[in-house]
Amino acid sequence: MKDKCGVVGVWFDKEKNRDSAAIYIYYALQALQHRGQESSGIAVYNGNAVLNDKGMGLVTDYFNRDRLQRLAGYSGIGHVRYSTTGSSRVENCQPFIVSYKNGTIALAHNGNLVNYRELKKELEADGRVFISDSDTEVISHLLVKNLMRNDLVEAVRETMRKLVGSYSLVILAGDKIIGVRDPLGFKPLCIGRLDSGYIIASESAAIDTLSGELLRDVAPGEMVVLSDKIESHKLFKCKNHAHCMFEFVYFARPDSIIDGKLVYRVRHRIGEELARECPTKADVVSPVPDSGITSAIGYSNTSGVHYTEGLIKNRYVGRTFIMPNQDLRETAVRLKLNTVRENVAGKDVILIDDSIVRGTTSRRIIDLIRRAGAKSVHARIGSPPIISPCYLGIDMATREELIAAHKSIKGVEFMIGADSLYYISLDGLVKAIGIDKEDLCTGCLTGIYPLEIPGERCESKQTKLNNFACD
Amino acid sequence: MKDKCGVVGVWFDKEKNRDSAAIYIYYALQALQHRGQESSGIAVYNGNAVLNDKGMGLVTDYFNRDRLQRLAGYSGIGHVRYSTTGSSRVENCQPFIVSYKNGTIALAHNGNLVNYRELKKELEADGRVFISDSDTEVISHLLVKNLMRNDLVEAVRETMRKLVGSYSLVILAGDKIIGVRDPLGFKPLCIGRLDSGYIIASESAAIDTLSGELLRDVAPGEMVVLSDKIESHKLFKCKNHAHCMFEFVYFARPDSIIDGKLVYRVRHRIGEELARECPTKADVVSPVPDSGITSAIGYSNTSGVHYTEGLIKNRYVGRTFIMPNQDLRETAVRLKLNTVRENVAGKDVILIDDSIVRGTTSRRIIDLIRRAGAKSVHARIGSPPIISPCYLGIDMATREELIAAHKSIKGVEFMIGADSLYYISLDGLVKAIGIDKEDLCTGCLTGIYPLEIPGERCESKQTKLNNFACD
Amino acid sequence: MKDKCGVVGVWFDKEKNRDSAAIYIYYALQALQHRGQESSGIAVYNGNAVLNDKGMGLVTDYFNRDRLQRLAGYSGIGHVRYSTTGSSRVENCQPFIVSYKNGTIALAHNGNLVNYRELKKELEADGRVFISDSDTEVISHLLVKNLMRNDLVEAVRETMRKLVGSYSLVILAGDKIIGVRDPLGFKPLCIGRLDSGYIIASESAAIDTLSGELLRDVAPGEMVVLSDKIESHKLFKCKNHAHCMFEFVYFARPDSIIDGKLVYRVRHRIGEELARECPTKADVVSPVPDSGITSAIGYSNTSGVHYTEGLIKNRYVGRTFIMPNQDLRETAVRLKLNTVRENVAGKDVILIDDSIVRGTTSRRIIDLIRRAGAKSVHARIGSPPIISPCYLGIDMATREELIAAHKSIKGVEFMIGADSLYYISLDGLVKAIGIDKEDLCTGCLTGIYPLEIPGERCESKQTKLNNFACD
Amino acid sequence: MKDKCGVVGVWFDKEKNRDSAAIYIYYALQALQHRGQESSGIAVYNGNAVLNDKGMGLVTDYFNRDRLQRLAGYSGIGHVRYSTTGSSRVENCQPFIVSYKNGTIALAHNGNLVNYRELKKELEADGRVFISDSDTEVISHLLVKNLMRNDLVEAVRETMRKLVGSYSLVILAGDKIIGVRDPLGFKPLCIGRLDSGYIIASESAAIDTLSGELLRDVAPGEMVVLSDKIESHKLFKCKNHAHCMFEFVYFARPDSIIDGKLVYRVRHRIGEELARECPTKADVVSPVPDSGITSAIGYSNTSGVHYTEGLIKNRYVGRTFIMPNQDLRETAVRLKLNTVRENVAGKDVILIDDSIVRGTTSRRIIDLIRRAGAKSVHARIGSPPIISPCYLGIDMATREELIAAHKSIKGVEFMIGADSLYYISLDGLVKAIGIDKEDLCTGCLTGIYPLEIPGERCESKQTKLNNFACD
Repeated sequence: MKDKCGVVGVWFDKEKNRDSAAIYIYYALQALQHRGQESSGIAVYNGNAVLNDKGMGLVTDYFNRDRLQRLAGYSGIGHVRYSTTGSSRVENCQPFIVSYKNGTIALAHNGNLVNYRELKKELEADGRVFISDSDTEVISHLLVKNLMRNDLVEAVRETMRKLVGSYSLVILAGDKIIGVRDPLGFKPLCIGRLDSGYIIASESAAIDTLSGELLRDVAPGEMVVLSDKIESHKLFKCKNHAHCMFEFVYFARPDSIIDGKLVYRVRHRIGEELARECPTKADVVSPVPDSGITSAIGYSNTSGVHYTEGLIKNRYVGRTFIMPNQDLRETAVRLKLNTVRENVAGKDVILIDDSIVRGTTSRRIIDLIRRAGAKSVHARIGSPPIISPCYLGIDMATREELIAAHKSIKGVEFMIGADSLYYISLDGLVKAIGIDKEDLCTGCLTGIYPLEIPGERCESKQTKLNNFACD
Repeated sequence: MKDKCGVVGVWFDKEKNRDSAAIYIYYALQALQHRGQESSGIAVYNGNAVLNDKGMGLVTDYFNRDRLQRLAGYSGIGHVRYSTTGSSRVENCQPFIVSYKNGTIALAHNGNLVNYRELKKELEADGRVFISDSDTEVISHLLVKNLMRNDLVEAVRETMRKLVGSYSLVILAGDKIIGVRDPLGFKPLCIGRLDSGYIIASESAAIDTLSGELLRDVAPGEMVVLSDKIESHKLFKCKNHAHCMFEFVYFARPDSIIDGKLVYRVRHRIGEELARECPTKADVVSPVPDSGITSAIGYSNTSGVHYTEGLIKNRYVGRTFIMPNQDLRETAVRLKLNTVRENVAGKDVILIDDSIVRGTTSRRIIDLIRRAGAKSVHARIGSPPIISPCYLGIDMATREELIAAHKSIKGVEFMIGADSLYYISLDGLVKAIGIDKEDLCTGCLTGIYPLEIPGERCESKQTKLNNFACD
Repeated sequence: MKDKCGVVGVWFDKEKNRDSAAIYIYYALQALQHRGQESSGIAVYNGNAVLNDKGMGLVTDYFNRDRLQRLAGYSGIGHVRYSTTGSSRVENCQPFIVSYKNGTIALAHNGNLVNYRELKKELEADGRVFISDSDTEVISHLLVKNLMRNDLVEAVRETMRKLVGSYSLVILAGDKIIGVRDPLGFKPLCIGRLDSGYIIASESAAIDTLSGELLRDVAPGEMVVLSDKIESHKLFKCKNHAHCMFEFVYFARPDSIIDGKLVYRVRHRIGEELARECPTKADVVSPVPDSGITSAIGYSNTSGVHYTEGLIKNRYVGRTFIMPNQDLRETAVRLKLNTVRENVAGKDVILIDDSIVRGTTSRRIIDLIRRAGAKSVHARIGSPPIISPCYLGIDMATREELIAAHKSIKGVEFMIGADSLYYISLDGLVKAIGIDKEDLCTGCLTGIYPLEIPGERCESKQTKLNNFACD
Repeated sequence: MKDKCGVVGVWFDKEKNRDSAAIYIYYALQALQHRGQESSGIAVYNGNAVLNDKGMGLVTDYFNRDRLQRLAGYSGIGHVRYSTTGSSRVENCQPFIVSYKNGTIALAHNGNLVNYRELKKELEADGRVFISDSDTEVISHLLVKNLMRNDLVEAVRETMRKLVGSYSLVILAGDKIIGVRDPLGFKPLCIGRLDSGYIIASESAAIDTLSGELLRDVAPGEMVVLSDKIESHKLFKCKNHAHCMFEFVYFARPDSIIDGKLVYRVRHRIGEELARECPTKADVVSPVPDSGITSAIGYSNTSGVHYTEGLIKNRYVGRTFIMPNQDLRETAVRLKLNTVRENVAGKDVILIDDSIVRGTTSRRIIDLIRRAGAKSVHARIGSPPIISPCYLGIDMATREELIAAHKSIKGVEFMIGADSLYYISLDGLVKAIGIDKEDLCTGCLTGIYPLEIPGERCESKQTKLNNFACD
């Protein structure tokens, strides 16, 4: 399960910091590296022109001293990307830079447009051409189109009126840094203060890394403009929001605060809830590292079951090459995870994981623990069954691949080889997150989406698609 | 603090596995990657010739399908290396391959020779030439010299008689794989069984990764020869051993079993000991990740103090480039570690770390926690003060750099900015490890070394240097 | 002096050659490598989709077996590029690929649009966006715009109506390969027959390399469409043409036939003319290699002056790094050219070069020959003085840099240190080429251009810019 | 046919040029790049230590500003290498650096030891070990062995006494640069003066490139030591020499002076001789570029037959990938050579090539010319038939592969498809070179070698192998 991207934008007072925006972006992108490891990019403005550099690879692999020093500017944006299948081409790297009548604009995007194809068709009907297959290019075209006849704020408003889906955007336009979050607030985006500047980033951990101060989240439907002040434009306001609950369960760093909630706290409470909802007698509770760790601690604290590390993660495994070989059938998982035999042998083990997607990894892990001598393995999952695909930016799986879309919980339990299986209840998860259920996107858990998606059920939180009547 | 190397050797029945020794070595080296990230190398034997490939970089970065397929053989050895300063040249990569009168030999070495310079001078006096500055080349020369007039076992014995220092060696000679461990057993080395073959490796986690079975440690002073059976030659036997206690405290993977002791268990007991030796009132106990995690769990279990994660480690940070810049003075540490503010703010925090070397990192971490609002920070350290350098293969620091070599515990406490500081007692550590103090090397903790080292105190466990009289 | 690009397109009968268009393009691009060494690119059509790959570097450096095998298709185009300053970014590599309403189009372009900025502004006024600073992107936009309301032929006609400048284009559209040459025929483009297919290329040497048969040049103003036949559309016909005479003098391979004229023959005749126009008593005639070789042979044949190689070119020099160092001031030229002392020492030497641009290289070469002991050096130049810049695609120099723009021939003679200097007459050059003066572009030699260029004199061969009335 | 290596050594007065020896070596190696393109290396001395860097690739590809700046020293040596098959490993790159009792020595070698295996065995019998399969390592061992008991000059003498074969060596020992040439003088080596320094190089063109002055050749059997003066030691003097005649025919740059003879002049006279020895009626004489060019000019000058370029060489072809494909059977040769049809069509063509080894290339070239319409093709070859392999450093072919070892001249003529074939006579070649036949190695032309080679006939110019009695 993979999120799509991390974005960041910084603005500095050019009297105080004329040249080093790129360095700050470079560090901030490292703090967001968990959100995408395929490509990295930075674009900066030097008061005169937009300079940019982007390419395949981790931030620290692609960027070096030379590349950074060439990017001398006082404001800029950055992007890390995880690509969905089939499109890992250099043309799809971000920031996406376009020049148009009035200048040059750079965009970095986290999210997924549901009406990407319709919008592209509309623009193509106008005779427009595309050089990539990214929805960011579509947004660029719309934005430029609207900038031709509107000021910046109205152009963004008109653009947002067309976009259906999730989008947290940072935009470099002239010497301004713009942050935009979709009206339902799917993806996180927050604002911070730096020494003589401001920052917008996907997660607050990026602000911490620069020793900045988290000010607040960008509100759903809000556009903020960074310059020597933070200008706010609440362009759209919906009755409810649709924050992605998987940011809390899995994607975000535990040290980030998203929509006012510390991710660590949420995960800890998920463990507490699991302990309360399904009390289980066992010798130890162990996480699947890394995402299950905090919940397992919470489980232990509430249940009194001893916390232990039954599995150790190899921190150094890169892109390994697996030989098709009978004897090595276990190696792929063993390279990443190994059991600490003594911690599970002869014991009843509660195993905490964040979610089950296809079920194959869970089965292999449980098998490992069992071979290490566990008496029983009780799987406790930090999210309810995933029964429906995500259309809002998570490259999860197709409905066919989702094990819980086709099997009962008993069926999943059997498939993964657990002695017992319990998923947290939706209400329990909501309680752990601490945000109203009405303000969360639970499409993948309920099959009911906050936006109209062809072929899926919808309980639209946006009253109309093309005329966006928001209160 | 950095260990020097990881070594592995595998032997397969060539009727059953003629070509893929390199693949097994490749996986095993990944499991040992934490022991060295600078260079990687593999040498195999195909029944006819020795093939080898080595170069700078991680195992998964340097080796690809093509390189592995060219290394078709049924036995072989591998090496991952962390270089000490000044010698990161391709000539120093291992395995070190030499051809001589009777054939070709490949060696991989973990350890450090104390009498490297003397031996090199002796060999140079013979007119021998050297192409690297590694002690492995010295061992090769000695071994070949002895092979000229002895059989393999006697040649190894004669070579060992000359070597003073730490060495765990794997050697490829003809179709045999040889493992050798120095008489004091400084560095780990263990043997496992594979499907239709055997393996020798620095740590048992490498055996697990190949779904093999750990048979036993190579004994100090033992030479083992892998072929269709395991042949053992106990060449030297000393009254006592000198296992490096830092393997347990810091270097080895927690899921490895070294000299019969599960590293996880040792670290857990270190935490228990710390709780017992120095009971402290506090709200939470938090580790410095990763090496302090298991001890912090142990501490919590024994003391009842709540276990929490006050610091989160960024798993994706590579070799970053730090700009010399006032505003970013904290960034170097922030890129790697961030605080979870809520877990420490307003709290009395017990912070568990494995060791203090220079003290600079500790000071920065404690500073971070304090800025996150901790009421107090009580540092508890899983090893006694390091007061003396390591000559046996750990690239630790010079005596001048070791903070505890020059300051009292109170002085260190002040320098790192802790409200209180407690180091585990040597007896407590010994108890946690579960090996007699007489069988551990505690040179860096006591200044008394198990071997004669010019300028240092010694309580020699080897009765004589050049005539190695062992009981 | 650098030309901008080489282009190629191939079409195969898919029953006979379904997969290997890319291989043929790969070889053809190598034959055109002299036209551009900065970047290489190939796009192919497989009956379903356009596949493409492009990047910085020589054809043989960028493309390897893997890259070529991924480009499985039966028709396609390729491009090698020499970039003008400041724009050597990966975004500027060609073929340029765009998707639009009705599909995907790939373009490769050799030439330079004079009205690039006006066209871009016009398109930007429409709200169009650009991701590169290449004129090829402008052509793509226009073509797509016209394809929205016209069939392919009319769309090309409408596009050409807007373009002012030089352009030889190959276009991949659906399964068709299209060749287009501007109405004045600045840049070469020719058609050949292959086994079960056709080819369009910048030079006939590319056809020879594939063992194909040169059929004819694409006519100025013609559009050809390759499929199982060659379809010709004479879209514009001007009274006169404007073939670049520097293709004959310098750019093209001597073994290419351009606009019916063998380049070797032209260069030979240039030497003959020089001998006739300015008879000179001398011991030897020597070329500046490589471009002066054939003319020097012609000179020798006509004059009877002994042909010799006074200068030897180092064939292996790559991009060298020159240290700023007094003692090495000659090294930059010496690395490329060395004198054969005995061939010039004590002799009166006629030195044949193709052209003089800035004069600095000529001065250094003449200096070398003089130091080798030549009694006198008489420079004979295969083109008339260059007094005006090229706006049609040759990255020559600014007017300020052109030595002959500011100095008399005597002045140039003095600057380059020749004992005498003679430039071929314009009539002599025209006679050597064998094409009417009215059908050649001589803008850089006369300052009178065949197209309206702001600030320059024009004797327009196109009667009107925007309404292109051609006979 | 490939030569093995180029070597260079420079020494500077350290008061005047403390740091930039590496830069001079870098340029000199580029001038010698034609002698080897596989690997490049430089070693320098900074008054204190030897620094070195070497790796695979062309000089300009491997070395960059950073690598050169790290090599700060005032004396040093360099090497370019063409590897014989099977040994293109980084371990075989030169200079070969060894440290021994008294310091560090670096060697660069051009040539081939005939008794390599015997010497290696002898050294192995001593217990010495080898890390490469190069004969340079053997020379290093011998030299160090002799340096243990002798001064430098005697050590070199004793080493030379053991070596049988061809060797031009440059050695960096302390702050001295040593040049050594084998007693028969197979491979070239010459000395030059630089501004405040001296140079030794394989060819004088390297001296020219540095604007130095060629002083003289190193004499066969001479050792020269560069410091603030040139010290000469004539260690061995044989009655006759054995200069490789292929240096003149093919390997060396035409602008180099070797053993007092300008290579250009030799090649010109080869053409003159061919014209005299075998007068032939024809329309044109054309070279196979590049090696046949000068001889074809000479042929034309003597015979009066018109000189033309029937074949054009593509200067930009790199390591291309040839698809196994029927239609492209000609492409491999066509990528490198294309015909200028008009220059050969309907004509009787004399084709000048330097040599015929296997005959396959000749056949393809003649086939190309014939398809271009030549009436007849008369091959004239600048060396006599090659009937026997080279053991002295040219990677030519095995006897089985040499076409003239098995066929009569008529047979070769038939195989290559020429209308007539004529090889220069040995006497003619000798005359062209201008060195007594007794002082040339003609082993490959006569089958009689100047040294004893097992299985071959010998007319030894060295009276004894191990006691080297020279007059």
